[in-house]
Amino acid sequence: MEDLYKQTLSLVKPSSSRAAFVCFNLWSDTKFDLATVYVSDAQYNRNIFFGTSPQAVRLYLLYNHLFMQTLVYVFIIINLALALFEDPAVVPLPIWATSTIEIICLSAFTVRMVHYAKVIPRDKFWKDPKNICIIVIVTLSFIDLTIYGALKATGYFAIRWSRVLRPLLLVNVTEGRQLRRAFRSIRNALPQISYVFLLFMFSVLVFSLMALKLFGKRGLLTIDGSPYFTDYLDIVFDLYVLVTTANSPDVMMPAYNYSVFFTIFFILYIVINTYTFMSFFLAVVYNNYKKYLKEEVRQLVKARRFKMCRAFSLLRETCGEGGEPVVTQAKWNHLVKLVKPNISIAHQELLWSVLDDQNKGHIGKFAFVQLADLLSIQVITVKSQPHPIQICFPSMYNSSVSRFIRNVVHHRMFVYVYDLIILVNAVFIGLDEENPVVSNAEWDFVLYAGGYTSRQILDIVFILRVLRLIRLVDSIKRFRAIINTLIKIGPTILTFSQLIVVVYYIFAMVGMELFKGKVQFFEPNSTSPDQEYCGNPLLKGTTFAKLNYCKNNFNNVVSSFIVLLELTVVNQCGFTAVTHVSARIFFVLFHIVVVIIIINIFVAFILEAFLVEYTVDKSDLQTSLEKKIEELELNVQQDGVDTGLVDAMESNDNELGPSEAGKQKPSLMFKIASRK
Amino acid sequence: MEDLYKQTLSLVKPSSSRAAFVCFNLWSDTKFDLATVYVSDAQYNRNIFFGTSPQAVRLYLLYNHLFMQTLVYVFIIINLALALFEDPAVVPLPIWATSTIEIICLSAFTVRMVHYAKVIPRDKFWKDPKNICIIVIVTLSFIDLTIYGALKATGYFAIRWSRVLRPLLLVNVTEGRQLRRAFRSIRNALPQISYVFLLFMFSVLVFSLMALKLFGKRGLLTIDGSPYFTDYLDIVFDLYVLVTTANSPDVMMPAYNYSVFFTIFFILYIVINTYTFMSFFLAVVYNNYKKYLKEEVRQLVKARRFKMCRAFSLLRETCGEGGEPVVTQAKWNHLVKLVKPNISIAHQELLWSVLDDQNKGHIGKFAFVQLADLLSIQVITVKSQPHPIQICFPSMYNSSVSRFIRNVVHHRMFVYVYDLIILVNAVFIGLDEENPVVSNAEWDFVLYAGGYTSRQILDIVFILRVLRLIRLVDSIKRFRAIINTLIKIGPTILTFSQLIVVVYYIFAMVGMELFKGKVQFFEPNSTSPDQEYCGNPLLKGTTFAKLNYCKNNFNNVVSSFIVLLELTVVNQCGFTAVTHVSARIFFVLFHIVVVIIIINIFVAFILEAFLVEYTVDKSDLQTSLEKKIEELELNVQQDGVDTGLVDAMESNDNELGPSEAGKQKPSLMFKIASRK
Repeated sequence: MEDLYKQTLSLVKPSSSRAAFVCFNLWSDTKFDLATVYVSDAQYNRNIFFGTSPQAVRLYLLYNHLFMQTLVYVFIIINLALALFEDPAVVPLPIWATSTIEIICLSAFTVRMVHYAKVIPRDKFWKDPKNICIIVIVTLSFIDLTIYGALKATGYFAIRWSRVLRPLLLVNVTEGRQLRRAFRSIRNALPQISYVFLLFMFSVLVFSLMALKLFGKRGLLTIDGSPYFTDYLDIVFDLYVLVTTANSPDVMMPAYNYSVFFTIFFILYIVINTYTFMSFFLAVVYNNYKKYLKEEVRQLVKARRFKMCRAFSLLRETCGEGGEPVVTQAKWNHLVKLVKPNISIAHQELLWSVLDDQNKGHIGKFAFVQLADLLSIQVITVKSQPHPIQICFPSMYNSSVSRFIRNVVHHRMFVYVYDLIILVNAVFIGLDEENPVVSNAEWDFVLYAGGYTSRQILDIVFILRVLRLIRLVDSIKRFRAIINTLIKIGPTILTFSQLIVVVYYIFAMVGMELFKGKVQFFEPNSTSPDQEYCGNPLLKGTTFAKLNYCKNNFNNVVSSFIVLLELTVVNQCGFTAVTHVSARIFFVLFHIVVVIIIINIFVAFILEAFLVEYTVDKSDLQTSLEKKIEELELNVQQDGVDTGLVDAMESNDNELGPSEAGKQKPSLMFKIASRK
Repeated sequence: MEDLYKQTLSLVKPSSSRAAFVCFNLWSDTKFDLATVYVSDAQYNRNIFFGTSPQAVRLYLLYNHLFMQTLVYVFIIINLALALFEDPAVVPLPIWATSTIEIICLSAFTVRMVHYAKVIPRDKFWKDPKNICIIVIVTLSFIDLTIYGALKATGYFAIRWSRVLRPLLLVNVTEGRQLRRAFRSIRNALPQISYVFLLFMFSVLVFSLMALKLFGKRGLLTIDGSPYFTDYLDIVFDLYVLVTTANSPDVMMPAYNYSVFFTIFFILYIVINTYTFMSFFLAVVYNNYKKYLKEEVRQLVKARRFKMCRAFSLLRETCGEGGEPVVTQAKWNHLVKLVKPNISIAHQELLWSVLDDQNKGHIGKFAFVQLADLLSIQVITVKSQPHPIQICFPSMYNSSVSRFIRNVVHHRMFVYVYDLIILVNAVFIGLDEENPVVSNAEWDFVLYAGGYTSRQILDIVFILRVLRLIRLVDSIKRFRAIINTLIKIGPTILTFSQLIVVVYYIFAMVGMELFKGKVQFFEPNSTSPDQEYCGNPLLKGTTFAKLNYCKNNFNNVVSSFIVLLELTVVNQCGFTAVTHVSARIFFVLFHIVVVIIIINIFVAFILEAFLVEYTVDKSDLQTSLEKKIEELELNVQQDGVDTGLVDAMESNDNELGPSEAGKQKPSLMFKIASRK
């Protein structure tokens, strides 16, 4: 071990080890391994109480290995995708095939669970609800699989009810932290949401009573000839749907046709319930989201600091003036190399110079704790290589013609002209459709080349051509804040789409069991007489059939997802015509869960992201890192165009002259990624 | 004047004039008048620079008189209501009649304007844009009226284009402060909204290009047999409408029926444009609303303080220790009496005791400035009169039986039982429809009594019966915060509805000129063959006609408003089938103005109101007023039920005993209104 110490001491460069004292402490691989785990746990916000024995640490490292994590998600996706092949299937596979795949998946989850149980202490394992959840889900799936197999083998009717549980694995897996956070946020908002919801339902019920009194006795008829507003429960449902604006003019028309004064009732209803109460839901969700977010961030920061302190206490040495515990640069370098193996030396030096501002050669606890945050800030290392022509033909590169060309290319007008070309190109994409010469030439060529698949390839090429336009918009400064928000939202959209998948999957499974085969889709060239009412006599003459909505059904998992999407967007509830009460309950439940809760969380999230982008400044640490980069003159000239390119280039040239040769400044530059 | 001084000095009660020194200053009626105007201007946030001569002040008082203000609004409403009688009319009146009424209205506005010009200095008058606006509107209306009359008299075609300007009077009238603030808030948000809108339109255009490329060449047909997604502008419109979710499944169905993979395009579109961009609009509006609100409040407080300082400098006297300027209680009392003539002496004393905490008999500038805020806090004076039975039959009232009854009535259980009775009553209202005995008896009686009008009266009675249920909900503590928010929103809803009226009116006027008579409504018992396509051959076979939407037309101002409401709620744009391009532009413009801007402001406003209700505490002043009320033991026992009624009653009895007789404490109690 002393060998190692000497070895690493020699790594410390003269420039940074100018501190006059030497610290004595033994360091071991084990300690470094443990410290590495603490730092990377802090960096990725992992909160797992693992054992500290060398073996446990090694198991824990294996558990957190990217390959293992990817494998878990692959198995989860395979398990979820089974719905494509199980009855009612998109691509039918025999039961033995899907069952075998499912058993493999479930076994994989079991193995992963056993691994986890080995990593953390036994009492912690059994106290963690997510472990219990996974064990219950896997057990129930095995039981269901056995029962289903047995029933099917003997020819009985059977339901694969455990499929509803599958998406819950996504939530309870160790890596699903963000998703669990989202669900916790929903759970925390639930009490307040339910109070508003009760009041809202009370309002709907009172309005329904009024509607019954106002319209029930007038003998009005709806458009399909049925009595209008005579049954209390029907009125409640109709008015509930009015909140979703799905049946907006229809539900009002008979009363409006009878007397114009009755519209006052509906206007009041829409103002109070559709607008005010729906805004209340958003307000409650937003309020809770903000409150909860603050609390979560506070706790994350606390946990991160705690872990960094543990890492510090493993590596600290008590020495120097005042006897304060410190960590030397040698140890720090070793640690950083372990945490982030592919970090460049320049980047590492940059980070150290941010922490060790006074160039002491060691840092205290306060500075050390910031390491995790520093590593989280994405710094892009830009290598400013000389232009290939400059290397091969230096005289040509430095000729006045070449300088002129370079200046032209970097000039503001050139950028504008380039943008204009993109725009003209886009117009041509739109126009060439009309131009038979261009268009047919393209299409003929492609069709000759190989028919349908090439056609699809061409579609993709066309889309990529159109996407070039985004470059144009990004060059306009005003739009950048908006686009930045869009980009920032990106990662959280991933969490959000997982949330949506979990909810959709559960509703799709239930919906398929309830409604499969009720609505049939016939290919356009079929001659079946059932085609015009989607194969269900109950739909004869309904708007649903007339508008050819037959493909909006629950006959397989893909079309179920699409129906649910349609329900989310506009709550097109034509399918309630088929099976009466269950469909209505299904519809209302879906509306409450997805539209009232989840969509509002999405809106709240975007609202907050947007407000933060417009109001909050960068973190202190990010600012000090940027300052350091500027101080060391390593910053990339970002807006050469804005500051007058020629000036910037010349001053760069001047800087390159007197720079110290040993620090490789000219060839490496940094910029902070999020700053764009 | 010295008479007056002595006279008012004698008004100062011994209890409050215990200060050892006497201040000497002359006071005049003129000064008090001016101070009164400043204080009430501060109280009602009026910002009018009036002349300070006695005559100008008197003119200004007349200008602000409630009667004059009411009169202005009456004329505005009459002027707006003229649309009911003008062609296309709900109730047709001859042109000479409507013109005469309009001339009267316009003259009234002119008189009011002249009055205003006399009140404020000439240079201020011409610098104020709202005055210029009113003058321009009135002049244009007169010109339009003349041209229209002349053209009609000679039998030419003429349009009353100045009707569009009418609602603008509502904005530019002196009293329309709140409405102007709302419009200013919109104007301030416009630049940011327009950046997001441009980006949003860019996204729609790019998606439309993609759609053209993806679907244009496939020869797909829509449900009514027309080619699907082949014309670029049609695609742009269809995809814009998809953002409003109005044509949600329809626009997707042909592509979906062709291949399931094309739904990916629509899902992407919906996620990006319908959800993300629409949330962006809300975020931008909300952000601006908050920012602007803070700035407005800051300026209002500043202006209020400035006016109170001017009032103070009119009434101050330099005397006492330290030579600080002060206002004596006598002057203060006189001022308060002038500002709020119907204030009770007890209330006045309460306010004074809040300001003059140390009972000096005079207050400094800091305390004086708070007067306007204090007057804004609504304090309800409750006279605790003894029960009539207590006066007439004291022995009976104090008997043990009576005490028992009183205890029972005030008991918690009694409240529950009462609530239960209301609930049962509500259920019966719902049920009696089914019960022929109850129901028919009621209806027969009413029909016998006088036919249709009684029927309407009965409707109202029924609704009032149902509304009793609200009392039930209000008794549940959890719901009170929500209901409080609802109540708080009330006054601003008024501003908001004015905003809506202005925008709707303008769109209704334009819509009527563009689309009147295009769609016809036939009474249900008519036998016209045109009935099934709303009198317009273009609507033959469209969903619009099939769903019997004929009454959704622009044939008069009332049905125009209802169509606009429907457009706001669900953007049912069936009427675009009738007149092609103008209807589409009209529809998109309306959507941008009403849904993207105004509805988002409404949501932002409710969001903020809700968040404030949940997070912000009462103002300091309100707290100190409440403290004072409690200190003086004048507070009303609010939740007798919660604190155990019997205890509260007994302690009340005890308090009544040793109270000083002179201060009338037992018979008067206060509570702060907003506290509920």
